Amino acid sequence: MAPEQPTDDDLPATVRIREVGPRDGFQNEPERIATDDKVALIDRLVRTGIDRIELTSFVRPDVIPQLADAEEVLRRIDVPEGVSRSVLVPNERGLDRALPLRERFDEVGVFLSASETHNRKNVNRAVQESLAGIAPVVARAQAEGLHVEAVIATSFGCPYEGDVDPARVREIAGELAAMGVTEIGFGDTTGMANPRQVRRFFADAAAALPGVLLTAHFHNTRGQGLANAVAALEAGCTSFESSFGELGGCPVPKGATGNIATEDLVSMLHEMGVATGIDLRALLDASRAVQGVLGRPLGSHTLVAGPIDWHRDAGAPA
Amino acid sequence: MAPEQPTDDDLPATVRIREVGPRDGFQNEPERIATDDKVALIDRLVRTGIDRIELTSFVRPDVIPQLADAEEVLRRIDVPEGVSRSVLVPNERGLDRALPLRERFDEVGVFLSASETHNRKNVNRAVQESLAGIAPVVARAQAEGLHVEAVIATSFGCPYEGDVDPARVREIAGELAAMGVTEIGFGDTTGMANPRQVRRFFADAAAALPGVLLTAHFHNTRGQGLANAVAALEAGCTSFESSFGELGGCPVPKGATGNIATEDLVSMLHEMGVATGIDLRALLDASRAVQGVLGRPLGSHTLVAGPIDWHRDAGAPA
Repeated sequence: MAPEQPTDDDLPATVRIREVGPRDGFQNEPERIATDDKVALIDRLVRTGIDRIELTSFVRPDVIPQLADAEEVLRRIDVPEGVSRSVLVPNERGLDRALPLRERFDEVGVFLSASETHNRKNVNRAVQESLAGIAPVVARAQAEGLHVEAVIATSFGCPYEGDVDPARVREIAGELAAMGVTEIGFGDTTGMANPRQVRRFFADAAAALPGVLLTAHFHNTRGQGLANAVAALEAGCTSFESSFGELGGCPVPKGATGNIATEDLVSMLHEMGVATGIDLRALLDASRAVQGVLGRPLGSHTLVAGPIDWHRDAGAPA
Repeated sequence: MAPEQPTDDDLPATVRIREVGPRDGFQNEPERIATDDKVALIDRLVRTGIDRIELTSFVRPDVIPQLADAEEVLRRIDVPEGVSRSVLVPNERGLDRALPLRERFDEVGVFLSASETHNRKNVNRAVQESLAGIAPVVARAQAEGLHVEAVIATSFGCPYEGDVDPARVREIAGELAAMGVTEIGFGDTTGMANPRQVRRFFADAAAALPGVLLTAHFHNTRGQGLANAVAALEAGCTSFESSFGELGGCPVPKGATGNIATEDLVSMLHEMGVATGIDLRALLDASRAVQGVLGRPLGSHTLVAGPIDWHRDAGAPA
């Protein structure tokens, strides 16, 4: 039971969360997770009330062997009606690999970095080259009836270049919107965002990008992830990405730690009176199963502490 | 180098942080830390620019043996001018023990819980009995020229009773203020606060308690601690308590995890353009020393990731 909340502020009543753990999380695990385990974990996650999930990535298997089983995962999972399934594709070759399984997913994710140096280190291209490469992916995916999200990494700071000009991020977002992209994710890839910056950023981006769904993708690298999520929420953002157990990160640079934990985000939002549609207990059970597979404790605080009403279920004095 | 920050919002320009790790943190460690180590760690912490520190507690040594060396710690530490040293006293007997060392500290902390059940489990008294017991401690401490902070635990929720009425918390705070207490800390002892609630709470408390310094004491039990700190900041709060390495917790109930990490709080505030006077690098070095003594990784994210400009020092491309 959450405390009764004031209703005189104007936070969104509902948000949507895309669970990115099966892609962003599993990709960053040092050991490749067995396909059987992935399938079992995804089948469990999609039954927690989550309605968007990023399943895998069609990257080169020699570059990211952790996701080399993308086709098999897509084929074998059992996802209920109403859950939107997305796959990441780095380029047209990735899309070529994904499209034979068109009926097994609903959304495509594409990505680039706002910072030239990070984009170069991550995909060995200039930002404009990445944009040029994304355009045909967007066109072909949309021709197949797929929803497209474009994620702009290092939107709030670059570990190599430092500050990233928010006007430049909006400019890149504008180019993506002009291609017809209807959802743009802003990634704080290495946890450099702060709440003051985020609130301003999302307010300005909403004004600059009417009709585009703006998605917040924060990492908890320095513990500020949920504070940034609240700042985005206060600026009107209603779409978030997170990963069970705070898994995830970024291949470059080393030390870039995980996404905000879905469990902690959901716990906080529910306590704030913001609905997510997710059953927190079912999600914690699913995360515990992930923990079992990985054989180590995950980084979610709520997974350790339990939901706020744990003691009531445990028979503590009411 | 933090990004240039907008100046059109009205966040406080400066806040003060009281480091509570030597008391709240060390008290909750299963193994008692050697006095030599405590002294060395405190001597290091007080040289990071922190200007308030809670050093120990004069609780019964048989109840909390981890702090049985309170007198020795106070006698041996070397704290520079300008750093305000506080000790926690649970009752007059605690004050009796502390006062012979009057020259070795500047502040006294007293505490009770807003929730009857938590207060009963923690100190085996009704809230009114605790208030009655606090009154003479405040009077005697102030007669000695000591600053007094009263902390109200479970101000944002109780693990046994659930919701805590904010009007009741303000009422207790009002009684403390009437005793002459000039600083009241509001403790989210078991991490049940959410940012929406916190913002409203601090705005209302500031209106109800003019002239009293209101201090926010959040735990990161469910990962929401920094989000709550930002909410308090946005409501005008300028005084925070935190613990290096996310150490700390509460003796009851089990599973109540640590305070917000000072490192993460300082990193976030500095990035937001809010000054603390603390040298983050020196603080991280001190936390690393604590880590060495405890022999396990601490829970601060910034301690793992490094400060936001770490790569520049590491010679990464500028």
